[in-house]
Amino acid sequence: MGKSDLGIIGLGVMGRNLGLNFLDHGYKISGYDRDSSKVQALKEESHGLSPSFDRLEEFVNSLQSPRKILLFVPAGKAVDLVIDELLPFLQEGDILIDGGNSFFQDTERRQKQLEEKKIFFIGMGTSGGESGARHGPSLMVGGPIEPYELLKPMLEAISAKADGEACVDYMGKGSAGHYVKMVHNGIEYGIMELIGECFDLAHRVLKWDEKKIADLFEQWSKEELSGYLVEITVTILRKKDDRSEDLLLNRVLDVAKQLGTGAWTSEEALRLQVPTPTIDAAVLMRNLSARIEERKAFKALFNGIEPIPILDEPQLDSIADELKKALFLGMIATYAQGFSLLREASKHYEYGIALEKVAKVWRGGCIIRSVFLEKIRRAFSQNPQLLNLFLDPDISQEIKARNLVFSLRKLCGLAINSGLPFYAFLSSLSYFDSFRCGKLPANLIQLQRDYFGSHTYERIDVEGIFHTLWE
Amino acid sequence: MGKSDLGIIGLGVMGRNLGLNFLDHGYKISGYDRDSSKVQALKEESHGLSPSFDRLEEFVNSLQSPRKILLFVPAGKAVDLVIDELLPFLQEGDILIDGGNSFFQDTERRQKQLEEKKIFFIGMGTSGGESGARHGPSLMVGGPIEPYELLKPMLEAISAKADGEACVDYMGKGSAGHYVKMVHNGIEYGIMELIGECFDLAHRVLKWDEKKIADLFEQWSKEELSGYLVEITVTILRKKDDRSEDLLLNRVLDVAKQLGTGAWTSEEALRLQVPTPTIDAAVLMRNLSARIEERKAFKALFNGIEPIPILDEPQLDSIADELKKALFLGMIATYAQGFSLLREASKHYEYGIALEKVAKVWRGGCIIRSVFLEKIRRAFSQNPQLLNLFLDPDISQEIKARNLVFSLRKLCGLAINSGLPFYAFLSSLSYFDSFRCGKLPANLIQLQRDYFGSHTYERIDVEGIFHTLWE
Repeated sequence: MGKSDLGIIGLGVMGRNLGLNFLDHGYKISGYDRDSSKVQALKEESHGLSPSFDRLEEFVNSLQSPRKILLFVPAGKAVDLVIDELLPFLQEGDILIDGGNSFFQDTERRQKQLEEKKIFFIGMGTSGGESGARHGPSLMVGGPIEPYELLKPMLEAISAKADGEACVDYMGKGSAGHYVKMVHNGIEYGIMELIGECFDLAHRVLKWDEKKIADLFEQWSKEELSGYLVEITVTILRKKDDRSEDLLLNRVLDVAKQLGTGAWTSEEALRLQVPTPTIDAAVLMRNLSARIEERKAFKALFNGIEPIPILDEPQLDSIADELKKALFLGMIATYAQGFSLLREASKHYEYGIALEKVAKVWRGGCIIRSVFLEKIRRAFSQNPQLLNLFLDPDISQEIKARNLVFSLRKLCGLAINSGLPFYAFLSSLSYFDSFRCGKLPANLIQLQRDYFGSHTYERIDVEGIFHTLWE
Repeated sequence: MGKSDLGIIGLGVMGRNLGLNFLDHGYKISGYDRDSSKVQALKEESHGLSPSFDRLEEFVNSLQSPRKILLFVPAGKAVDLVIDELLPFLQEGDILIDGGNSFFQDTERRQKQLEEKKIFFIGMGTSGGESGARHGPSLMVGGPIEPYELLKPMLEAISAKADGEACVDYMGKGSAGHYVKMVHNGIEYGIMELIGECFDLAHRVLKWDEKKIADLFEQWSKEELSGYLVEITVTILRKKDDRSEDLLLNRVLDVAKQLGTGAWTSEEALRLQVPTPTIDAAVLMRNLSARIEERKAFKALFNGIEPIPILDEPQLDSIADELKKALFLGMIATYAQGFSLLREASKHYEYGIALEKVAKVWRGGCIIRSVFLEKIRRAFSQNPQLLNLFLDPDISQEIKARNLVFSLRKLCGLAINSGLPFYAFLSSLSYFDSFRCGKLPANLIQLQRDYFGSHTYERIDVEGIFHTLWE
């Protein structure tokens, strides 16, 4: 009985599915979980090929040296507990990989802690859900680079492929892998909110039924909007309820929950002062949706407010095309904001992230995968220092040539006049207009600050710091 | 030579002006600063009435027991250093008051630290700038209530007055005073951004010159928009540059700086999951304004995008009135968001904040003072548990009767069609529409989450947690 190539701690669906994925590719996996029913599940699903343990020392001893152990336990204290339990059995040169959604600052702390013992700690962002774990996730690896070279063949084998290329790469030093995963989730929130608002406008303002909208999304999923989230929306919109004659969608409570990674992205954007309005809007709308009592009270008081009536019948075909363009531009804005945050974070935390590699690993396996990521990859490949995706020659050319902004303005105007919440779209338009408009009224704000707080201001004509004696 | 009633540490403009204010009201003040030139300044400006020290022990000994010491040092480490220096000279029952813009969590920490030594630590939010400090600030007191009773007469004497009532009160336990000040600053950012965007629309889209807009603001400052920020904007818009023939405004660089308290408010709103979009938009726009290189690059690439031409000449008088209404509604939304955050924070941190008292102390002396705060005070006086200012009977009635939302929609549509950034206004409209619209597309988001992550959802017809087997 030879030693195993890799060990997995945490045999919930994610850990178990990854284990089976590794097995499919000829790797021998040991599994460990405190919960013996999970240990049993892996034994059965792997047809006995995976040595499975509920005793940690045996588990560690079953592994080839240096030991490579993948953790798939819940983020937070559980990870620290597992590390503490493992330490007595580890040696210098062993490699721990945290594949969960850990907060990047916790990863930094753990890396430093284990570095002292000369144990490698890798923070690996994993995306693709259970099915991704089983058949090909997107993997964002961060931390010391030497162990990555050891792990690379295994990770490339099991990862998703896009155009035959593995969707795994080294993101950067320290907690870069988990940071990239966090931003992935922020972008995910943004795109999901845009899709929801798009559906809402089509359904409640244009009065299209769910079938028509599903067909439209299906058509879009074959064009420039092609991507996982658009595709699954088609399936979801068509799904019938099994408890009633209704569509399932119409029986679901409109309160969007969250595990917190989108809020982390917003918080980091705030801290690093990078504008991410579409992502922020998405997080905010989830928070707002949960305020059920308040929403009911507002509706009771204000539902009677008449929106401005639409002055002309929208041309059916053309408005569907404009809706698609607006959604596309909103998505571009969301990706642009996420990549801007990564650019800033890479400098601030000294990660050394190559944005092209981020786009590369996101092209397959992960929730935000879409064909547009190929254009993003090309943009950063041509200019690794690109300030903002909107400034890429090809992307900006497409935005202008296809008049995407015109469509976004039109749909935003329609939503506003109809009283429909459209915050992620409005935020995307504001992002674009705020950056490109030349002048902002920030000069007035500076003078107000100087007036009441003597905070000083700068001039456009002379260098220096100035203050006016206002009284 | 009798003992002093109060000591002030930190004799920069704020500390010194407060000292002079206390003196005017017959209180004897000792002043201390490491910087002897500041000590000298207080001596001179108080005509020798204020004993001023550059040695801490003498300073403390000059004070009546229990000693009451007001700190006006820069927030952060300086406060901790001063506390450490003071400790050897303090006794049980002495009272420290931190009047600076300290981060509320630091205040909590300091309170606990000093509680062990039976020394009272009060966190006092102070607003009104230098002139407020001199002639009447707004004071938000938080911490142990017993020392507040001792300090109350002095604070009421020097504070601003609104309708003869002192703009000072006990906000709540712990760091409530500094938390309330933080939210004050968040609201301040929001209102400043709205005023800036309002000016921008009037100037760049309606093509009104600065004189006309100043006159308009002046008229508004006598009506329902009456308040400090609107008033100072009139002065600022009329201010001539002393280096050129231009208005000063047109020579000021449009990069809005910040000391961070607005971002703290956004961060707290995110953490407590309270939607504060107008405040968030204001912080974001300051961050965006600072990205000079990126803004220039966007402008170079995208300036040629033609906005949709305005279809008809706006009626001059009526659009000015609609602009005022839109600004008014935006301000209502900003106050509503701030008070919602305070309501949530009061529960979460167990502050015990009476929102009516917050409105009371904000009616005078502080930067966000306005006549509308009297309506806010009345709203919370009638219903201390009011969920949201929009739900107050009088406020909601005014919003509906005066058709404020119609005006906000119209101006938002105008900005969008013209390509003008209008994010604080759009955020205010989205806040209103999102709360009142009845249904949100959050149900679609829940099904997407269940699809790719088995995150489960709730139904509108049956209690429970549900999951669909999607494959």
